[in-house]
Amino acid sequence: MKLSDLGEDAVVSRLTRSLRLDGRVVVRPGDDCAVVETTGRLQLLKTDCVIEGIHFLSDADPKLIGWKAMCRPISDIAAMGGTPLDALVTLAVKPEIEFAWLKRVYSGLESAAAAYGVNLVGGETAKSPGPFFLSVAMTGSVARGKYVGRSGGRRGDWLYVTGKLGGSMNGRHLRFRPRLAEARWLVGQFPVHAMMDLSDGLASDLPRLAAASGLGFEIEASSLPLHSGMTVENALRDGEDYELLFAVPSAVRTRLEAEWRSKFPKLRLTAIGRLVEQDRTEFSLQGYDHFRR
Amino acid sequence: MKLSDLGEDAVVSRLTRSLRLDGRVVVRPGDDCAVVETTGRLQLLKTDCVIEGIHFLSDADPKLIGWKAMCRPISDIAAMGGTPLDALVTLAVKPEIEFAWLKRVYSGLESAAAAYGVNLVGGETAKSPGPFFLSVAMTGSVARGKYVGRSGGRRGDWLYVTGKLGGSMNGRHLRFRPRLAEARWLVGQFPVHAMMDLSDGLASDLPRLAAASGLGFEIEASSLPLHSGMTVENALRDGEDYELLFAVPSAVRTRLEAEWRSKFPKLRLTAIGRLVEQDRTEFSLQGYDHFRR
Repeated sequence: MKLSDLGEDAVVSRLTRSLRLDGRVVVRPGDDCAVVETTGRLQLLKTDCVIEGIHFLSDADPKLIGWKAMCRPISDIAAMGGTPLDALVTLAVKPEIEFAWLKRVYSGLESAAAAYGVNLVGGETAKSPGPFFLSVAMTGSVARGKYVGRSGGRRGDWLYVTGKLGGSMNGRHLRFRPRLAEARWLVGQFPVHAMMDLSDGLASDLPRLAAASGLGFEIEASSLPLHSGMTVENALRDGEDYELLFAVPSAVRTRLEAEWRSKFPKLRLTAIGRLVEQDRTEFSLQGYDHFRR
Repeated sequence: MKLSDLGEDAVVSRLTRSLRLDGRVVVRPGDDCAVVETTGRLQLLKTDCVIEGIHFLSDADPKLIGWKAMCRPISDIAAMGGTPLDALVTLAVKPEIEFAWLKRVYSGLESAAAAYGVNLVGGETAKSPGPFFLSVAMTGSVARGKYVGRSGGRRGDWLYVTGKLGGSMNGRHLRFRPRLAEARWLVGQFPVHAMMDLSDGLASDLPRLAAASGLGFEIEASSLPLHSGMTVENALRDGEDYELLFAVPSAVRTRLEAEWRSKFPKLRLTAIGRLVEQDRTEFSLQGYDHFRR
């Protein structure tokens, strides 16, 4: 069976479900990050990559390629309620590439690392016979018992998204800003039951959060916060928004919305629907999948 | 200037020398692993990759590709005197690939992880328009003050290598066994001043260790432990041996060699020369470089 027949979620699930992991592993593969016991606190671990021709075009600004590559795992660690710490960079590049171009990529990596307090502590450089490949692995930290995975959603929780959705591939995907401060504030102030970042589009990501929580969802299409000129379809399927999707109990809605407006006046926060029982999902969604044609 | 004009060491050095790193970072980019403070112990961080057409051929056994990819960072963490803990896998693969093939790759990753006590805690799967790319990022741990970098060599130290060198690309590179138990035993029993694993060939790696220690080296070519049918040239340049190269004070030589024979009777240990003053290097060596033609 080809990967394109199975689809990304099935590929990952089939590859990882039999892994033998020791007692230090708190969250297995399948969430935004792995969570592992260290002395005192929990460690978050995440890797992500950008590939020429898939995540950016050959003529993209190399500094923005670096920025995006560093920001992707930062966004995942933010979505767990954690603080990013240290990054390792793996890059595969044609030997004919100009050093100045690669230096610009690194400059983008460093800018993002500096903006979010991350140490770029090492990596690996290899020659590639194919497209430029850039992977960033990152560690992060979260207080014991304080991480927010995808599986903690409860029936009746309200679903919120930060910012606006759709059309990221028009250029915004290379300049996005991980919602680190927002996620840390949310987790510090409110009982956030489940959270993730929107990388593959709401239509792919929301079903993952709901399924991880053993629930379904109801979404009001007209409530989705759209970027200018975008349709509901764009918001559902375009992906690469890197906004937060999270679930909170109904009781905190009024306080959350009021305090958010005062804390982050420039960033929209939108209630888009609720978590419901598994067989009650309303809104048939099918989103972006790395392997499906 | 093209990467192929600069060469790998210069590329990495120029990219990383200006990195701003906070006080938690104990060892900067340039050694086998990064070393970072965590609560109580030091954390080791390493990423490495294998690429189709560079590190293996398209018809290689997928299980061995996975084995090799997992064993490379284990070897680096071993070479710091550390214990590997958790791994993240990033893979980029054509959608037309058979799932059964990828499952075999994962089976190799898991075998190696199980053999060396590593948790495979997560990763990222992306589609690639080019060659198969597999990167493994790994964390490890070492007691405070107990890591062994490349820079601690002292003048007069003897240089040892484990095992035999040369000809790894004939197939052994896909089945190599990281010298984890050996490295841990060495660091526990002897004052190992500097250590690294031999991945690019002695002719590339030894000058790196000597330079990091601010020293030169004397090598006796006839003393190099050769795999059957291999020449000194093979031992110097072939690379991918993944044996340990380390420096110990002259005073421990007799005890080291006697205790090694009793502890690891099946694995050769060879004194190949000494660290000397920087301008006294004897043996002009030039080895494999990822970017040079």
